[in-house]
Amino acid sequence: MVSEAIRDRIEGALRDFMSIATDELRAIGDDLVPVADAAEEFVLDGGKRLRPAFCFWGALAAGGEDSGALVWAAASLELLQACALVHDDVIDHSATRRGRPAVHERFTALHREAGWLGDADDFGTAAAILIGDVLLAWSDAMMATSGLHDAALRRARPVAAAMRTEVMAGQYLDIVEQSRGATTVERALRVARYKAAKYTVERPLHLGAAMVGARADVIAAYTAYGIPLGEAFQLRDDLLGVFGEPGNTGKPAGDDLREGKQTVLVALAVERAAPAEAKVLHDVLGRSEVGDADIARARQVITDCGVASEVESMISSRLDDALAALSSVSLEPTAREELIALADAASYRHE
Amino acid sequence: MVSEAIRDRIEGALRDFMSIATDELRAIGDDLVPVADAAEEFVLDGGKRLRPAFCFWGALAAGGEDSGALVWAAASLELLQACALVHDDVIDHSATRRGRPAVHERFTALHREAGWLGDADDFGTAAAILIGDVLLAWSDAMMATSGLHDAALRRARPVAAAMRTEVMAGQYLDIVEQSRGATTVERALRVARYKAAKYTVERPLHLGAAMVGARADVIAAYTAYGIPLGEAFQLRDDLLGVFGEPGNTGKPAGDDLREGKQTVLVALAVERAAPAEAKVLHDVLGRSEVGDADIARARQVITDCGVASEVESMISSRLDDALAALSSVSLEPTAREELIALADAASYRHE
Repeated sequence: MVSEAIRDRIEGALRDFMSIATDELRAIGDDLVPVADAAEEFVLDGGKRLRPAFCFWGALAAGGEDSGALVWAAASLELLQACALVHDDVIDHSATRRGRPAVHERFTALHREAGWLGDADDFGTAAAILIGDVLLAWSDAMMATSGLHDAALRRARPVAAAMRTEVMAGQYLDIVEQSRGATTVERALRVARYKAAKYTVERPLHLGAAMVGARADVIAAYTAYGIPLGEAFQLRDDLLGVFGEPGNTGKPAGDDLREGKQTVLVALAVERAAPAEAKVLHDVLGRSEVGDADIARARQVITDCGVASEVESMISSRLDDALAALSSVSLEPTAREELIALADAASYRHE
Repeated sequence: MVSEAIRDRIEGALRDFMSIATDELRAIGDDLVPVADAAEEFVLDGGKRLRPAFCFWGALAAGGEDSGALVWAAASLELLQACALVHDDVIDHSATRRGRPAVHERFTALHREAGWLGDADDFGTAAAILIGDVLLAWSDAMMATSGLHDAALRRARPVAAAMRTEVMAGQYLDIVEQSRGATTVERALRVARYKAAKYTVERPLHLGAAMVGARADVIAAYTAYGIPLGEAFQLRDDLLGVFGEPGNTGKPAGDDLREGKQTVLVALAVERAAPAEAKVLHDVLGRSEVGDADIARARQVITDCGVASEVESMISSRLDDALAALSSVSLEPTAREELIALADAASYRHE
């Protein structure tokens, strides 16, 4: 969904930075080669590059000039995201990521193959924690070496800092909601706001805006566009997590239900369903062992009580708000078109 | 061992920064209060503040001017260290830190008390991973908001970046050595170089030097002082881990032996001991259940085969090298005295 030309430049920047950064690790000693390889492959292996794209177009729409430095600085957001994903997979005990073994699983396997002492899973967890830490540190190093001038970096840093705090806070809120169970729509929306809306859309746009010294009305418009769009994005994810086809999502059908994920969709369904229907839902939520027939019944409940279409309406109205916000200020026309396209793609994506 | 006047200023900077940073977390919602509290208490609760002190005196010895901005920037190293410790305690399954529950244990307890769903230990681990991440991000934010001018920050950043990569690399090398077992003196020294020498002494000095734009000969002298001193520091730690008194070290007597820590001291002892003596060592290494009598016998072996005094000599010669390096360049006299005092204290410390 990120247009190919800018995506290629983001990939190029990541490839160049990761090559330099991981070679520094390799130079420390052969033992670090698996760490360097895992970090490099993880960062370069896919990912939609949404955050760098929002940052880049946010800068250009605000009147900034296209430059290699800007692309490089924007791409640094992918390293923060890589840290979040590597640590998230540890936290969730996820065995795979994008169809490949998760980082901790790679190091569990390395430990096993080497026949080392101690617990292989513990080693995998330890390695993944440290690799996530390195990626987080590199996210900052990549921005610092972008070639953006000092004034741009000085404006960008507080935004980058807020973004890092907020994404970790959002992750924590998420694990609290999962642990608490029985979330409310309001609380699930708050998680979506921090984990998705601010982190994926609003802050990347603000970062781009800060880099080029955007006007205050542009920054405000980015919030008015970014928050509803990011929520729409998360709500689409909620729907895909229940109704998505495994071929498109890369996850088993109804995965969110088996995991008992406390999403806005699930919270709404539990709220709206009649007692008998609610029981059907409760019988699958968080039960990894339930079969496809039970999942199909739970899906039917979510559709029948009108919640699937309610969430579709929430997405549409948020998308409308986001697009209206883009029209409310003066933006560079080409970049504005890109932001409109990103909004459409993000709220109706089929992946 | 860090002189009181500078220590108080470092504490003050940390208190001020942490108050602002954690209030931002608290503002997100009540659920974040335990996260904010845990992060704040962890950072403010003790710690020798060695790294900020080396950074500060490194800047002053190179001719830099004392300023609040410098202290604030130097203090930011404690947040990197806090991240490393919080994550280290997860990796090592350490239940306590400085006599208090480790961060992950706090959150395991929170989960239990709340009667939440899922595994309480998993929740504790997840929270500690995220809190470590936030602390790492804040380390950068604290340096950025120090008030140092752009040129100083531009010089300091690559050093800070190298430091972050190296400490994580050192931690990884350490877990590899622990997993491999039967380390060699050479490999144990390499871990000491990254985990202690570069990270605790050399890089903090370089960071201070970079902040004030030190001459190349000063930077070289800091390496010549920092590496041997940091190794001496780690070797002292190795001795204390085997021979230290619980009242001084805060850890059970012979703790490193029971943990089977692959230190330079242990590697040397295994290398030097005759077969019968080596067996005494192997019978305690990594056995958490062995009694004090076995520990005492193992200690005796380490003393008898001459390794305890060999390590003392290694410390002395490294300390000599470090002090000689300080005399080899022109440094501001008061700061030089402080660096001498830090060297003495760090290599003979009784804590």
